[in-house]
Amino acid sequence: MRQPENLREERVASRQLLDGRLLKVFSDTVRLPDGREAVREWIRHPGAVAVIAHLRASDELILERQFRYPVGKAVWELPAGKLDSGEDPEACGRRELEEETGWRAGALHYVLPLLPCIGYSDEVIHIFYCDELSPGRAGLDEGECLDVHRLPLIEVRRLLETGAIQDSKTLVGLYWLFARLDAEARA
Amino acid sequence: MRQPENLREERVASRQLLDGRLLKVFSDTVRLPDGREAVREWIRHPGAVAVIAHLRASDELILERQFRYPVGKAVWELPAGKLDSGEDPEACGRRELEEETGWRAGALHYVLPLLPCIGYSDEVIHIFYCDELSPGRAGLDEGECLDVHRLPLIEVRRLLETGAIQDSKTLVGLYWLFARLDAEARA
Repeated sequence: MRQPENLREERVASRQLLDGRLLKVFSDTVRLPDGREAVREWIRHPGAVAVIAHLRASDELILERQFRYPVGKAVWELPAGKLDSGEDPEACGRRELEEETGWRAGALHYVLPLLPCIGYSDEVIHIFYCDELSPGRAGLDEGECLDVHRLPLIEVRRLLETGAIQDSKTLVGLYWLFARLDAEARA
Repeated sequence: MRQPENLREERVASRQLLDGRLLKVFSDTVRLPDGREAVREWIRHPGAVAVIAHLRASDELILERQFRYPVGKAVWELPAGKLDSGEDPEACGRRELEEETGWRAGALHYVLPLLPCIGYSDEVIHIFYCDELSPGRAGLDEGECLDVHRLPLIEVRRLLETGAIQDSKTLVGLYWLFARLDAEARA
Protein backbone atom coordinates (compact mmCIF):
# COMPACT_ATOMS: atom_id res chain seq x y z
CA MET A 1 0.00 0.00 0.00
CA ARG A 2 1.33 3.45 -0.89
CA GLN A 3 1.34 5.90 1.96
CA PRO A 4 -1.06 8.84 1.61
CA GLU A 5 1.87 11.27 1.27
CA ASN A 6 2.84 9.50 -1.94
CA LEU A 7 -0.50 10.46 -3.46
CA ARG A 8 -0.05 14.15 -2.71
CA GLU A 9 -0.49 16.81 -5.39
CA GLU A 10 1.64 19.94 -4.94
CA ARG A 11 0.49 23.40 -5.99
CA VAL A 12 2.62 24.92 -8.75
CA ALA A 13 0.46 27.96 -9.53
CA SER A 14 -3.00 29.32 -8.68
CA ARG A 15 -5.23 31.92 -10.26
CA GLN A 16 -8.75 33.04 -9.42
CA LEU A 17 -11.25 32.47 -12.21
CA LEU A 18 -14.32 33.93 -10.51
CA ASP A 19 -15.01 36.13 -7.49
CA GLY A 20 -18.77 35.70 -7.22
CA ARG A 21 -20.97 36.75 -4.30
CA LEU A 22 -20.93 33.16 -3.09
CA LEU A 23 -18.69 31.23 -5.47
CA LYS A 24 -14.95 31.86 -5.42
CA VAL A 25 -13.43 29.68 -8.14
CA PHE A 26 -9.74 28.95 -8.66
CA SER A 27 -7.70 27.14 -11.29
CA ASP A 28 -4.50 25.64 -9.94
CA THR A 29 -1.68 23.89 -11.72
CA VAL A 30 -0.48 20.94 -9.63
CA ARG A 31 2.40 18.48 -9.78
CA LEU A 32 1.16 14.89 -9.62
CA PRO A 33 2.92 12.14 -7.66
CA ASP A 34 4.38 10.84 -10.94
CA GLY A 35 5.94 14.23 -11.72
CA ARG A 36 3.53 15.31 -14.43
CA GLU A 37 1.38 18.42 -14.17
CA ALA A 38 -2.40 18.76 -14.19
CA VAL A 39 -5.03 21.48 -13.72
CA ARG A 40 -7.50 21.45 -10.82
CA GLU A 41 -10.52 23.78 -10.74
CA TRP A 42 -11.98 24.22 -7.29
CA ILE A 43 -14.22 26.39 -5.13
CA ARG A 44 -13.19 28.06 -1.91
CA HIS A 45 -16.07 27.85 0.57
CA PRO A 46 -16.26 29.27 4.11
CA GLY A 47 -17.54 25.97 5.53
CA ALA A 48 -20.89 25.22 7.11
CA VAL A 49 -22.59 23.64 10.09
CA ALA A 50 -25.59 21.30 10.37
CA VAL A 51 -27.42 20.27 13.55
CA ILE A 52 -29.26 17.04 14.32
CA ALA A 53 -31.86 18.50 16.70
CA HIS A 54 -33.54 15.71 18.69
CA LEU A 55 -36.50 16.31 20.99
CA ARG A 56 -35.94 13.29 23.25
CA ALA A 57 -39.13 13.66 25.27
CA SER A 58 -41.38 13.32 22.23
CA ASP A 59 -38.88 11.39 20.06
CA GLU A 60 -39.08 13.95 17.28
CA LEU A 61 -36.51 15.57 15.02
CA ILE A 62 -36.52 19.14 13.81
CA LEU A 63 -36.15 19.16 10.04
CA GLU A 64 -36.58 21.81 7.42
CA ARG A 65 -38.09 21.75 4.00
CA GLN A 66 -36.60 24.31 1.69
CA PHE A 67 -36.65 24.92 -2.03
CA ARG A 68 -33.10 24.54 -3.34
CA TYR A 69 -32.75 26.35 -6.60
CA PRO A 70 -29.71 24.47 -7.99
CA VAL A 71 -31.57 21.15 -7.80
CA GLY A 72 -34.96 22.68 -8.65
CA LYS A 73 -37.00 21.18 -5.84
CA ALA A 74 -37.92 21.31 -2.17
CA VAL A 75 -35.52 19.25 -0.06
CA TRP A 76 -35.69 17.79 3.47
CA GLU A 77 -32.73 19.08 5.44
CA LEU A 78 -31.12 19.33 8.82
CA PRO A 79 -31.05 22.93 10.05
CA ALA A 80 -27.78 24.32 8.67
CA GLY A 81 -25.95 27.40 7.59
CA LYS A 82 -22.65 28.81 6.42
CA LEU A 83 -19.91 29.91 8.79
CA ASP A 84 -19.38 33.63 9.07
CA SER A 85 -15.75 34.71 8.70
CA GLY A 86 -13.78 33.48 11.73
CA GLU A 87 -16.88 32.04 13.40
CA ASP A 88 -16.57 29.03 15.69
CA PRO A 89 -18.53 26.07 14.23
CA GLU A 90 -20.36 25.35 17.49
CA ALA A 91 -21.44 28.99 17.85
CA CYS A 92 -22.58 28.93 14.22
CA GLY A 93 -24.66 25.79 14.80
CA ARG A 94 -26.32 27.35 17.81
CA ARG A 95 -27.01 30.60 15.91
CA GLU A 96 -28.36 28.95 12.76
CA LEU A 97 -30.56 26.53 14.70
CA GLU A 98 -32.23 29.31 16.65
CA GLU A 99 -32.54 31.70 13.69
CA GLU A 100 -34.04 29.10 11.39
CA THR A 101 -36.15 26.99 13.74
CA GLY A 102 -36.71 29.00 16.91
CA TRP A 103 -35.09 26.29 19.06
CA ARG A 104 -32.21 27.16 21.39
CA ALA A 105 -29.51 24.51 21.85
CA GLY A 106 -27.91 23.41 25.10
CA ALA A 107 -24.78 21.23 24.79
CA LEU A 108 -23.79 20.38 21.23
CA HIS A 109 -22.00 17.09 20.54
CA TYR A 110 -19.59 17.04 17.59
CA VAL A 111 -20.33 14.21 15.15
CA LEU A 112 -18.21 14.56 12.04
CA PRO A 113 -16.58 16.91 9.55
CA LEU A 114 -18.40 16.00 6.33
CA LEU A 115 -16.77 16.67 2.95
CA PRO A 116 -19.77 17.01 0.64
CA CYS A 117 -18.01 17.68 -2.60
CA ILE A 118 -14.33 16.64 -2.67
CA GLY A 119 -14.07 16.80 -6.46
CA TYR A 120 -14.38 20.59 -6.70
CA SER A 121 -14.95 22.27 -3.34
CA ASP A 122 -13.02 22.64 -0.10
CA GLU A 123 -16.30 22.87 1.85
CA VAL A 124 -16.48 21.14 5.23
CA ILE A 125 -19.87 20.73 6.92
CA HIS A 126 -19.43 20.30 10.66
CA ILE A 127 -22.27 18.09 11.89
CA PHE A 128 -23.43 18.41 15.50
CA TYR A 129 -25.97 16.49 17.57
CA CYS A 130 -28.15 18.15 20.20
CA ASP A 131 -30.86 16.75 22.47
CA GLU A 132 -31.02 19.71 24.87
CA LEU A 133 -33.47 22.07 23.24
CA SER A 134 -35.59 24.89 24.59
CA PRO A 135 -37.84 27.43 22.89
CA GLY A 136 -36.00 30.50 21.55
CA ARG A 137 -36.72 33.08 18.90
CA ALA A 138 -36.58 32.50 15.13
CA GLY A 139 -35.44 35.21 12.73
CA LEU A 140 -34.81 34.20 9.13
CA ASP A 141 -32.33 36.02 6.91
CA GLU A 142 -33.81 38.04 4.08
CA GLY A 143 -34.53 35.82 1.10
CA GLU A 144 -34.68 32.66 3.24
CA CYS A 145 -37.96 30.79 2.76
CA LEU A 146 -38.21 27.51 4.58
CA ASP A 147 -40.67 25.44 6.55
CA VAL A 148 -39.76 23.94 9.91
CA HIS A 149 -41.19 20.55 10.86
CA ARG A 150 -41.22 18.43 14.01
CA LEU A 151 -41.25 14.87 12.71
CA PRO A 152 -41.54 11.68 14.78
CA LEU A 153 -38.42 9.52 14.49
CA ILE A 154 -40.45 6.71 12.99
CA GLU A 155 -41.61 9.04 10.23
CA VAL A 156 -38.03 10.18 9.57
CA ARG A 157 -36.94 6.53 9.28
CA ARG A 158 -39.68 6.00 6.74
CA LEU A 159 -38.54 9.03 4.72
CA LEU A 160 -35.00 7.65 4.81
CA GLU A 161 -36.05 4.16 3.74
CA THR A 162 -38.23 5.38 0.87
CA GLY A 163 -35.47 7.55 -0.61
CA ALA A 164 -37.27 10.83 0.16
CA ILE A 165 -34.14 12.20 1.81
CA GLN A 166 -31.39 12.93 -0.69
CA ASP A 167 -29.34 15.79 0.74
CA SER A 168 -25.88 14.61 1.75
CA LYS A 169 -25.51 16.29 5.17
CA THR A 170 -29.02 15.17 6.11
CA LEU A 171 -28.49 11.56 5.03
CA VAL A 172 -25.19 11.33 6.91
CA GLY A 173 -26.59 12.95 10.05
CA LEU A 174 -29.69 10.75 10.10
CA TYR A 175 -27.83 7.52 9.35
CA TRP A 176 -25.40 8.39 12.14
CA LEU A 177 -28.28 9.06 14.53
CA PHE A 178 -30.17 5.86 13.76
CA ALA A 179 -27.00 3.75 14.02
CA ARG A 180 -26.41 5.31 17.43
CA LEU A 181 -29.98 4.89 18.64
CA ASP A 182 -30.05 1.28 17.43
CA ALA A 183 -26.80 0.59 19.30
CA GLU A 184 -28.28 2.20 22.46
CA ALA A 185 -31.41 0.03 22.10
CA ARG A 186 -29.33 -3.16 21.82
CA ALA A 187 -27.10 -2.25 24.80
CA MET B 1 -47.76 22.80 6.38
CA ARG B 2 -47.09 24.68 3.17
CA GLN B 3 -47.01 22.51 0.10
CA PRO B 4 -43.63 22.22 -1.63
CA GLU B 5 -44.95 24.15 -4.65
CA ASN B 6 -45.45 27.14 -2.37
CA LEU B 7 -41.72 27.20 -1.64
CA ARG B 8 -40.78 27.28 -5.31
CA GLU B 9 -38.39 29.87 -6.71
CA GLU B 10 -38.98 30.86 -10.34
CA ARG B 11 -36.18 31.82 -12.72
CA VAL B 12 -36.41 35.43 -13.93
CA ALA B 13 -33.03 35.66 -15.68
CA SER B 14 -29.84 33.61 -16.02
CA ARG B 15 -26.32 34.45 -17.12
CA GLN B 16 -23.17 32.36 -17.21
CA LEU B 17 -20.36 33.69 -15.01
CA LEU B 18 -17.72 31.07 -15.84
CA ASP B 19 -17.21 28.44 -18.49
CA GLY B 20 -14.31 26.51 -16.95
CA ARG B 21 -13.00 23.11 -18.04
CA LEU B 22 -14.95 21.53 -15.22
CA LEU B 23 -16.88 24.30 -13.51
CA LYS B 24 -19.77 25.96 -15.33
CA VAL B 25 -21.08 28.72 -13.07
CA PHE B 26 -24.33 30.65 -13.46
CA SER B 27 -25.94 33.59 -11.72
CA ASP B 28 -29.72 33.53 -11.85
CA THR B 29 -32.25 36.05 -10.67
CA VAL B 30 -35.21 34.28 -9.09
CA ARG B 31 -38.64 35.26 -7.79
CA LEU B 32 -39.19 34.04 -4.23
CA PRO B 33 -42.51 32.66 -2.96
CA ASP B 34 -43.19 36.00 -1.26
CA GLY B 35 -42.78 37.89 -4.56
CA ARG B 36 -39.37 39.42 -3.87
CA GLU B 37 -36.33 38.73 -6.03
CA ALA B 38 -33.01 37.18 -5.09
CA VAL B 39 -29.80 36.06 -6.79
CA ARG B 40 -28.69 32.41 -6.86
CA GLU B 41 -25.19 31.39 -7.96
CA TRP B 42 -24.91 27.76 -8.94
CA ILE B 43 -22.82 25.19 -10.80
CA ARG B 44 -24.03 23.02 -13.63
CA HIS B 45 -22.52 19.55 -13.25
CA PRO B 46 -22.93 16.53 -15.55
CA GLY B 47 -23.73 14.20 -12.64
CA ALA B 48 -21.75 11.26 -11.34
CA VAL B 49 -22.00 7.63 -10.29
CA ALA B 50 -20.55 5.74 -7.30
CA VAL B 51 -20.52 1.98 -6.76
CA ILE B 52 -20.59 0.00 -3.51
CA ALA B 53 -18.57 -3.00 -4.68
CA HIS B 54 -19.01 -5.90 -2.26
CA LEU B 55 -17.02 -9.14 -2.52
CA ARG B 56 -19.54 -11.37 -0.71
CA ALA B 57 -17.36 -14.48 -0.61
CA SER B 58 -14.60 -12.78 1.37
CA ASP B 59 -16.80 -10.07 2.94
CA GLU B 60 -14.65 -7.30 1.58
CA LEU B 61 -15.36 -3.94 -0.02
CA ILE B 62 -13.42 -2.32 -2.82
CA LEU B 63 -12.48 1.19 -1.79
CA GLU B 64 -10.12 3.75 -3.20
CA ARG B 65 -7.75 6.15 -1.57
CA GLN B 66 -7.15 9.24 -3.63
CA PHE B 67 -5.60 12.63 -3.01
CA ARG B 68 -8.32 15.24 -3.44
CA TYR B 69 -6.76 18.58 -4.18
CA PRO B 70 -9.66 20.84 -3.06
CA VAL B 71 -9.58 19.36 0.45
CA GLY B 72 -5.78 18.91 0.49
CA LYS B 73 -5.65 15.30 1.61
CA ALA B 74 -6.04 11.67 0.67
CA VAL B 75 -9.63 10.49 1.05
CA TRP B 76 -11.29 7.06 1.32
CA GLU B 77 -13.87 6.75 -1.44
CA LEU B 78 -16.23 4.47 -3.23
CA PRO B 79 -15.16 3.94 -6.85
CA ALA B 80 -16.86 6.77 -8.74
CA GLY B 81 -16.73 8.98 -11.77
CA LYS B 82 -18.52 11.65 -13.75
CA LEU B 83 -21.13 10.88 -16.37
CA ASP B 84 -20.08 11.41 -19.96
CA SER B 85 -22.55 13.45 -21.99
CA GLY B 86 -25.74 11.41 -22.50
CA GLU B 87 -24.30 8.38 -20.70
CA ASP B 88 -26.61 6.02 -18.83
CA PRO B 89 -25.75 6.03 -15.09
CA GLU B 90 -25.59 2.24 -14.85
CA ALA B 91 -23.24 2.01 -17.85
CA CYS B 92 -21.12 4.76 -16.29
CA GLY B 93 -20.89 2.89 -12.98
CA ARG B 94 -19.82 -0.28 -14.76
CA ARG B 95 -17.22 1.61 -16.84
CA GLU B 96 -15.74 3.59 -13.95
CA LEU B 97 -15.57 0.56 -11.65
CA GLU B 98 -13.62 -1.47 -14.18
CA GLU B 99 -11.34 1.40 -15.28
CA GLU B 100 -10.45 2.41 -11.76
CA THR B 101 -10.35 -0.91 -9.92
CA GLY B 102 -10.07 -3.69 -12.52
CA TRP B 103 -13.31 -5.31 -11.28
CA ARG B 104 -16.12 -6.02 -13.74
CA ALA B 105 -19.69 -5.68 -12.41
CA GLY B 106 -22.59 -8.06 -12.98
CA ALA B 107 -26.04 -6.78 -11.97
CA LEU B 108 -26.08 -3.31 -10.43
CA HIS B 109 -28.75 -2.42 -7.87
CA TYR B 110 -29.84 1.24 -7.73
CA VAL B 111 -29.60 2.66 -4.21
CA LEU B 112 -30.19 6.39 -4.27
CA PRO B 113 -29.75 9.67 -6.12
CA LEU B 114 -27.54 11.62 -3.71
CA LEU B 115 -27.50 15.42 -3.80
CA PRO B 116 -24.06 16.26 -2.38
CA CYS B 117 -24.18 20.02 -2.55
CA ILE B 118 -27.70 21.48 -2.82
CA GLY B 119 -26.60 25.00 -1.89
CA TYR B 120 -24.64 25.65 -5.08
CA SER B 121 -24.56 22.66 -7.43
CA ASP B 122 -27.09 20.65 -9.40
CA GLU B 123 -24.88 17.55 -9.13
CA VAL B 124 -26.59 14.20 -8.59
CA ILE B 125 -24.48 11.18 -7.61
CA HIS B 126 -26.26 7.97 -8.54
CA ILE B 127 -25.22 5.32 -6.01
CA PHE B 128 -25.32 1.65 -7.03
CA TYR B 129 -24.68 -1.57 -5.12
CA CYS B 130 -23.01 -4.59 -6.69
CA ASP B 131 -22.07 -7.97 -5.25
CA GLU B 132 -21.47 -9.73 -8.57
CA LEU B 133 -17.86 -8.97 -9.37
CA SER B 134 -15.32 -10.65 -11.59
CA PRO B 135 -11.77 -9.71 -12.59
CA GLY B 136 -11.58 -7.28 -15.53
CA ARG B 137 -9.00 -4.81 -16.75
CA ALA B 138 -8.11 -1.50 -15.11
CA GLY B 139 -7.11 1.54 -17.17
CA LEU B 140 -6.88 4.88 -15.37
CA ASP B 141 -7.45 8.18 -17.13
CA GLU B 142 -4.41 10.39 -17.55
CA GLY B 143 -3.78 12.39 -14.40
CA GLU B 144 -5.70 9.93 -12.19
CA CYS B 145 -3.57 8.69 -9.31
CA LEU B 146 -5.36 6.45 -6.85
CA ASP B 147 -4.83 3.33 -4.80
CA VAL B 148 -7.35 0.51 -4.81
CA HIS B 149 -7.92 -1.47 -1.62
CA ARG B 150 -9.85 -4.60 -0.68
CA LEU B 151 -10.90 -4.01 2.89
CA PRO B 152 -12.70 -6.47 5.18
CA LEU B 153 -16.16 -5.20 6.17
CA ILE B 154 -15.16 -5.16 9.80
CA GLU B 155 -12.28 -2.83 8.98
CA VAL B 156 -14.57 -0.55 6.98
CA ARG B 157 -16.96 -0.37 9.95
CA ARG B 158 -14.04 0.64 12.12
CA LEU B 159 -13.03 3.39 9.68
CA LEU B 160 -16.64 4.61 9.71
CA GLU B 161 -16.90 4.60 13.49
CA THR B 162 -13.60 6.41 14.02
CA GLY B 163 -14.50 9.23 11.63
CA ALA B 164 -11.82 8.29 9.07
CA ILE B 165 -14.42 8.34 6.29
CA GLN B 166 -15.59 11.86 5.51
CA ASP B 167 -16.57 11.89 1.83
CA SER B 168 -20.33 12.29 1.43
CA LYS B 169 -21.05 9.65 -1.25
CA THR B 170 -18.88 7.14 0.62
CA LEU B 171 -20.52 7.79 4.00
CA VAL B 172 -24.00 7.49 2.52
CA GLY B 173 -23.18 4.33 0.57
CA LEU B 174 -21.53 2.63 3.53
CA TYR B 175 -24.23 3.59 6.04
CA TRP B 176 -26.83 2.29 3.59
CA LEU B 177 -24.90 -0.99 3.20
CA PHE B 178 -24.41 -1.58 6.92
CA ALA B 179 -28.08 -0.78 7.67
CA ARG B 180 -29.03 -3.34 5.02
CA LEU B 181 -26.59 -6.01 6.22
CA ASP B 182 -27.69 -5.51 9.83
CA ALA B 183 -31.34 -5.89 8.78
CA GLU B 184 -30.44 -9.09 6.87
CA ALA B 185 -28.61 -10.43 9.93
CA ARG B 186 -31.64 -9.79 12.18
CA ALA B 187 -34.10 -11.37 9.71
